Parts: sequence; structure tokens; C-alpha cells
Amino acid sequence: MRIDVLTLFPEMFEGVFGASILGKAKDKGIVSLEAINFRDYSNNKHNTVDDYPYGGGGGMVLKAEPVFAAVEDLMAKKESGGRPRVILMCPQGETFTQQKAEELSQEEHLVLICGHYEGYDERIREFLVTDELSVGDYVLTGGEIPAMTVIDSVVRLLPGVLGNESSAVTDSYSTGLLEYPHYTRPSVFRDWAVPDVLISGNHAKIDSWRREQSLLRTLKRRPDLLESAELTDKERKWLAAQKQDKST
Amino acid sequence: MRIDVLTLFPEMFEGVFGASILGKAKDKGIVSLEAINFRDYSNNKHNTVDDYPYGGGGGMVLKAEPVFAAVEDLMAKKESGGRPRVILMCPQGETFTQQKAEELSQEEHLVLICGHYEGYDERIREFLVTDELSVGDYVLTGGEIPAMTVIDSVVRLLPGVLGNESSAVTDSYSTGLLEYPHYTRPSVFRDWAVPDVLISGNHAKIDSWRREQSLLRTLKRRPDLLESAELTDKERKWLAAQKQDKST
Repeated sequence: MRIDVLTLFPEMFEGVFGASILGKAKDKGIVSLEAINFRDYSNNKHNTVDDYPYGGGGGMVLKAEPVFAAVEDLMAKKESGGRPRVILMCPQGETFTQQKAEELSQEEHLVLICGHYEGYDERIREFLVTDELSVGDYVLTGGEIPAMTVIDSVVRLLPGVLGNESSAVTDSYSTGLLEYPHYTRPSVFRDWAVPDVLISGNHAKIDSWRREQSLLRTLKRRPDLLESAELTDKERKWLAAQKQDKST
Repeated sequence: MRIDVLTLFPEMFEGVFGASILGKAKDKGIVSLEAINFRDYSNNKHNTVDDYPYGGGGGMVLKAEPVFAAVEDLMAKKESGGRPRVILMCPQGETFTQQKAEELSQEEHLVLICGHYEGYDERIREFLVTDELSVGDYVLTGGEIPAMTVIDSVVRLLPGVLGNESSAVTDSYSTGLLEYPHYTRPSVFRDWAVPDVLISGNHAKIDSWRREQSLLRTLKRRPDLLESAELTDKERKWLAAQKQDKST
């Protein structure tokens, strides 16, 4: 898989592309990651890539020309014929989810476009990009950290990227429920002991405690997830009883 | 404001803390940003910070000791007496929003704890942290990119950080609506022209076109935002009519 990021701040990606899982995936040749400055595609002598908005108002707008030129250059350089997914990181985009990460992990080539406090010329949105993504309902200074978010979540899904060191532990969304509590040594830290059940050696009891904790935590913190989680009828009844307890 | 990040991968933060708005805010002395390796607070000779989970199962669990030791050391070094907000980045956390960013921007000291594919010993959650945050419903390899997300959104709110170069353009959430389309030169790019109204010079018409575009885009992409947006009665009626047009 190949992922190119178009940005005015390629240096922001150095630490993230070099370290940990992404760095290893690069070293293993599973993914090629590149941050490209689209200022290099500016066609004017001052290297400007933004300009004032038509119709007035504050703020600058990223010009269509350098963004089209950069994406078209990337496509021309590519050996295989397929068109890349061209993804605009922007607050107006579709909210990014795990399902979208899985979909993107099937692609051969992704190009992510990051604006930086400017708006985008609408013609980029209309005639160049295939997807617009937002990572959440908060305002950031640019699309760079959102692009890192998308890249990290997509690359970890590629075959061969996650070794045994990673695990189901962080996969809160794979069961559709939030994770149960984890404990490790020491069994007593300060005055706080590990729950007895976890050191009982009784695996059936441990499994049922963990499932119960997952259900309770999801009920308390993210009841919206319960709708699409896979639950038994007994669990649904038990949760309904818990909910009633809480409200009385 | 002071922000400390506890992580096993401090090098991931170099690019982001050095560039653009965050780099400038640091240089101006508005915020101090530090990424600290909590492996330095391990109390064993192998510098391990994780261990096998009680009760069995895959994955490793971050130990309570080095995390408590690192946070307590940061608190001891601090001149002012106030307790910091200690924020755990985790998928089980409260979903991060612009409102939370505004709340956190009022604090003097934030400490962000990033796990990395491991789970956290539950005692960290119960007895050390004040907040648990998730940036969205997708799985990442660690809390580092989410921590960058929180830091970026909080720091840009601090007085003196955003200059005139930044603007309302990216503040999709300040009006409660998605942004209207932006255009800049050239007025015709390839075959695609800027809408006539924007070069009409008629500012009343431009304002009303922009408002209409914002409303339509929000209706189409994020109808959930309309509920809490500030709209006139006339606008609500107009939107209802648009919705009906669409469905017939």
C-alpha cells in the first residue's frame, strides 16, 4: 500500500512516520508513507498556495492549482493504472469510523490532503477528491493530525503489521463493547488490591466477570454502542434490570 | 499553561510540537509542551513498564507504579499548588468535543497519559486520572495521536496563539453549521467557474448565498447539527421545505 500526504508542514509527520508501528510497517515494506509539500507545486514565483476569498470575508483559501498539480503528478508517477482514493481532511467531511478504516485498508493508494487554517477552493472538493473525512467534532489548526489518525488506523489493519505484542486489548470496537478492567502486578499497589476473582484461577468465573464488567462499563459510558453489539437475550434482560436499578 | 505528555514514544511528538501553531505558541512562551518517557520511572532493572494481565488473556497491561511515579514527580516539580488535570487517552473515555477543549483550555496544567497497544492497570483509572478521553470511534495503535489532537485543539484556544492568519474559516463549529463553499483565484480554473454571485460585489446577496449554502450543506451532511444551531424561524421553515423536496 502506498499513502501520500499533501501538506504545507511535512516536518510534522517525521516523528509519527518513523516511530513504533508505522515505522516498523515502513521498514518491513508493507506500506510506503510520504509527506509531500504541495508548495512545491505552486506555479508562481512567490510560492504562494493560498489567496483571498471571492466575495470577501476573513481567512485565506487554498488554491485549486497546486493541489490538482500535486495529485496529478502523484498519479502520473504511479506504475499501476488504478486511481487513488483522494481524501480531503476537513471539518465538513463524513465522520471517520472503524468501518471507514477497514474500507480504506483495502485500497492500493491513498492520497490525503491537509489544509492548514485556510479553507479549500471548492473546486478541489467538487472535481478532485473522492472522500472528505472529519475525525471528530472539534476544531484543529489543520488537517495534519487528522491525517495521522487516519493513517495509523488504516495501517494497523494491513496484514503483517501487528505482531503479537499488540492484541485484542485495545480493540474496544471489535466486540462492540468497551473493554473490561485490566490489572497486572503487583496484586496490591498501595492499598488497592486486584479483584479476588482474577487471582482465583477459575477461568469460567473470570470470563463471566469480564463480560459483566464490559457490559456495565458500556451501559454507563456509551449506551449507544449497546444497540449494535452482539448480546444474548439473557444479557439484554440483565442490562435492562441494571438500567432500572440505576434510575430508581 | 503547561502540558506534559507521558508516553513510551516521546520522539513521535517532535515534529508536531516544533511546527506551525504549536511551535509558535511554545516560542512565544504561551505554553510549555513536554513529552516524557514514563519508562524513566520504571523501578526495575529491565525498565519494563508492562506485565501480563491477572486472569490471563492476550496483550500486556501498563503497570500502575511507573505512571503514578511519573505524575507525582511532575506534581512535585510544579511551583503552584493546584492539582493538574490528569487525562487518560483511551477508547473507553468520554468522546472529546469542542466543549471539552474549551473547558481544558481554562486549566493551568494538563498531564496526558498515552498507552500504546497495552491496556492500563485499572488502578490508574480509579485513583490517578481525573478525565478519560477518546477522540472518536476508531482503533489506533496508541494514545499518542489522540494526545496531539487534544493538545492542538486546546492550545489554539489560548489567548495570543491564533493570529490573523487563522480565521473563522475553519471554525465550522462556532456557528453550529458547516462552512459554506470558498473560492479563490483564478475565477475560471480549467472549465470550472466561480459562482457569479461571489463576483457580483453585492454583499447582501453574497451573505445570503453563503448562509443558504451553509444550511444546505449541514442539512445534507450533518443534519444532527441543525438541532442545536441558532436558526431563525424563517430558516427552519425553509429547511423543512428543502427536506421535503429531497424526499419527494
